[in-house]
Amino acid sequence: MHGRQHHNIQLNEEGGLRHFLTIDGLGRDLLTRILDTAESFATLPGRPVKKVPALRGRIITNLFFENSTRTRTTFELAAKRLSADVLNFNVSTSATSKGETLLDTLRNIEAMHCEMFVVRHNESGAAHFIARHAAPGVSVINAGDGRHAHPTQAMLDMFTIRKHKGDFTPLRVAIVGDILHSRVARSQILALNTLGVTEVRVVGPRTLIPTDARALGVHVYHDLDEGLREVDVVIMLRLQKERMAGALLPSEEEYFRLYGLTNERLEAAKPDAIVMHPGPMNRSVEMDSEVADGPRSVILQQVSYGIAVRMAIMSMCMQTFEADGRPA
Amino acid sequence: MHGRQHHNIQLNEEGGLRHFLTIDGLGRDLLTRILDTAESFATLPGRPVKKVPALRGRIITNLFFENSTRTRTTFELAAKRLSADVLNFNVSTSATSKGETLLDTLRNIEAMHCEMFVVRHNESGAAHFIARHAAPGVSVINAGDGRHAHPTQAMLDMFTIRKHKGDFTPLRVAIVGDILHSRVARSQILALNTLGVTEVRVVGPRTLIPTDARALGVHVYHDLDEGLREVDVVIMLRLQKERMAGALLPSEEEYFRLYGLTNERLEAAKPDAIVMHPGPMNRSVEMDSEVADGPRSVILQQVSYGIAVRMAIMSMCMQTFEADGRPA
Amino acid sequence: MHGRQHHNIQLNEEGGLRHFLTIDGLGRDLLTRILDTAESFATLPGRPVKKVPALRGRIITNLFFENSTRTRTTFELAAKRLSADVLNFNVSTSATSKGETLLDTLRNIEAMHCEMFVVRHNESGAAHFIARHAAPGVSVINAGDGRHAHPTQAMLDMFTIRKHKGDFTPLRVAIVGDILHSRVARSQILALNTLGVTEVRVVGPRTLIPTDARALGVHVYHDLDEGLREVDVVIMLRLQKERMAGALLPSEEEYFRLYGLTNERLEAAKPDAIVMHPGPMNRSVEMDSEVADGPRSVILQQVSYGIAVRMAIMSMCMQTFEADGRPA
Repeated sequence: MHGRQHHNIQLNEEGGLRHFLTIDGLGRDLLTRILDTAESFATLPGRPVKKVPALRGRIITNLFFENSTRTRTTFELAAKRLSADVLNFNVSTSATSKGETLLDTLRNIEAMHCEMFVVRHNESGAAHFIARHAAPGVSVINAGDGRHAHPTQAMLDMFTIRKHKGDFTPLRVAIVGDILHSRVARSQILALNTLGVTEVRVVGPRTLIPTDARALGVHVYHDLDEGLREVDVVIMLRLQKERMAGALLPSEEEYFRLYGLTNERLEAAKPDAIVMHPGPMNRSVEMDSEVADGPRSVILQQVSYGIAVRMAIMSMCMQTFEADGRPA
Repeated sequence: MHGRQHHNIQLNEEGGLRHFLTIDGLGRDLLTRILDTAESFATLPGRPVKKVPALRGRIITNLFFENSTRTRTTFELAAKRLSADVLNFNVSTSATSKGETLLDTLRNIEAMHCEMFVVRHNESGAAHFIARHAAPGVSVINAGDGRHAHPTQAMLDMFTIRKHKGDFTPLRVAIVGDILHSRVARSQILALNTLGVTEVRVVGPRTLIPTDARALGVHVYHDLDEGLREVDVVIMLRLQKERMAGALLPSEEEYFRLYGLTNERLEAAKPDAIVMHPGPMNRSVEMDSEVADGPRSVILQQVSYGIAVRMAIMSMCMQTFEADGRPA
Repeated sequence: MHGRQHHNIQLNEEGGLRHFLTIDGLGRDLLTRILDTAESFATLPGRPVKKVPALRGRIITNLFFENSTRTRTTFELAAKRLSADVLNFNVSTSATSKGETLLDTLRNIEAMHCEMFVVRHNESGAAHFIARHAAPGVSVINAGDGRHAHPTQAMLDMFTIRKHKGDFTPLRVAIVGDILHSRVARSQILALNTLGVTEVRVVGPRTLIPTDARALGVHVYHDLDEGLREVDVVIMLRLQKERMAGALLPSEEEYFRLYGLTNERLEAAKPDAIVMHPGPMNRSVEMDSEVADGPRSVILQQVSYGIAVRMAIMSMCMQTFEADGRPA
């Protein structure tokens, strides 16, 4: 495993982060180092996150092939908190429409001295493709590619879990909803298993669970009450409403009846279980408002911690930190 | 009045500004403190406004439900002059379109450590609604809501008047045009009366004057020459051309003949009267170019002073200044 | 010539740059001073360009009437590297659509303390028009107007040539493609002749060479092999594909067969000739990928140097540098 990491496109020769494309192939030490670095950027609730000069004068480009104001904003904020300069390229409206190839667009932005691309694309593998073709010294962060991966979301989820539960080892975690189409779920499962939790469960209708789910190292449940029994963490996934039309799902009401989270159903979980959601949330579809706004919901903390976690990943990729986690 | 201020949603427990939603309920002392604070940010004409570190590391979000490049830009510039980081959320194109509620969008941006929302909305009361639901420590500034209020515009107008006239007490001010639909006029009338001018007049056709105008503390005129007689300040309002179609107005030419400002008609006012307009201006509809570009026009000064006035309001709301006006 | 420069709208009373609208009328000394100033901002390849406080607190507005993400980004980056605050006004979507005149929009942005406009417009002469009406102390940079001029592109091309060739005097330069419609070519020809090269050639089909080309001080070639013979620099222009429909051109394949650059055809040029292109490039139309990505291509260096050259022009116009080139 250690030997393999040294050939992972995500790592530099010293085993430090260069790109951040997927949780796959990253070891527990590295994930823990990301969480520890994020801890140094996070602050007390209600206080603004620290602004630090770590990336002053460095240029980061948001290269979004899929529009997502919120995700772009969290990366932009993280970059600004690090004092970097940020370029926003909405690719559908810029040079590629003039017949230029994607690689020429990349080369051009690199030539403007950009040292990092944050990439969002609706095709799986897009961030890897860009990373494989990036110039030396240029890092790529995957902000979501197709159904493949959304690793910064998974890491902010891990950070939130660690804040509340401390140790990952004894935890049982249930991920509920549309596992089949979810890049978030795929990255969460990899991160939870790498960090050594006791059990990861996926809960959802047969039509929304991948047929090879067990190969991912999870237990599969089709009944919500069974799936939630004695878990420490409940992660509800966003339901893409367009799945309804595609006959993969019954009505919203029927979905909520079977898989929607209520305080009553949450009683199956441990008394101190926390409830998470990557947002944006469909209230009364994925969960009841009494759960979303209740004492066990940590949904808004996920958003807050997202800034610090992205700051950590960005600064580690740009080698402001040494491979051993000390500032460069 | 003093006791009432302490229950005003706009004020904090010490009677200082927390939100800035409307002129209504704010006392003369507070308005004067805003003008004095703005004075400290304003500089000589032709020199750039000062850049100060007052809000370094603080995050301000422009939450615009109505597109307005110019207004958004003035707030963005004011925030940058205060060294804040600015997020621009054009709400029609972002998360609310994914089925998320407005309050969830708010909570999410707050969770990103945003401490101030600048809100523009085409429904009256929108800024109040957001202020009522804002988290502790988060301020809301109304950048125009429906026909209700545009209080920062009114304050930059007051600043401009004070620059030219010094004392408000002896002034007669005429506001000319579409009073009925104007959030600007409503806020100006409140500010002028709070600051103690001798007389506020509204001038316009019967179809564009609210039926309860006198209750606002103004004198109503339908004849421009009478309305302008001996006034110190003439404020021309922007005419929304879509009113023409709605039969509230005759043709542009007819409107100009009756209510358009020319040098000739301006002779009814005092010799040192100043002419104002909130912009954008329709030349040859609201006024002649010889007036707009003439020696009595202070229209561009209004724009300039707008930056300093918005800096003052933003920094006071974010408690960079104590309730007594001294820096925190 | 010296006397004429003093009446050039682009120059201030001391003969220093105030606006940068066209190469026409600028002397060799001034162009050389721009290149020397850019040299002070440029750094080793692969290293980010320096960030300097030269324009801290100054406001620069990108006033783009024609959408161009890439060009706007290079100016925005140059401004940020100089620590200026940048406003982006996409004019088609802002105040002019509310009936305000262009000059009122200008006056308003000036009133916001903006000291520089970077203007892109599809009509020739637009940047001059704005410069003629700019307030004292406000500078205008032409970022491309119609078929007229694109002088910052020409200067970054000159910078790239000087980096590789040192002295301009002995050089033979061929500009290949659609000369007729190219503002880039027009500015390049003026700059090359002002800097004293031995020969400027234009190469293209009769339909794409202006009938008065010789008056520009160039030699005209319709045969690519002849035009490239013994040149030191080959500049390929972007082909607007819409020319095909207009019957000015045969098919893309036919164009490439006649005027497309391949390694084979490049053999006519000097062995150390460099190949340039202003981007975005149409591969297999203007040139073969083996040329574009080959050892003689300096296309990406053009982009890199563009940031430093625009920093130089911006800071010279804003008088951060004295007329003699020393920092103010």
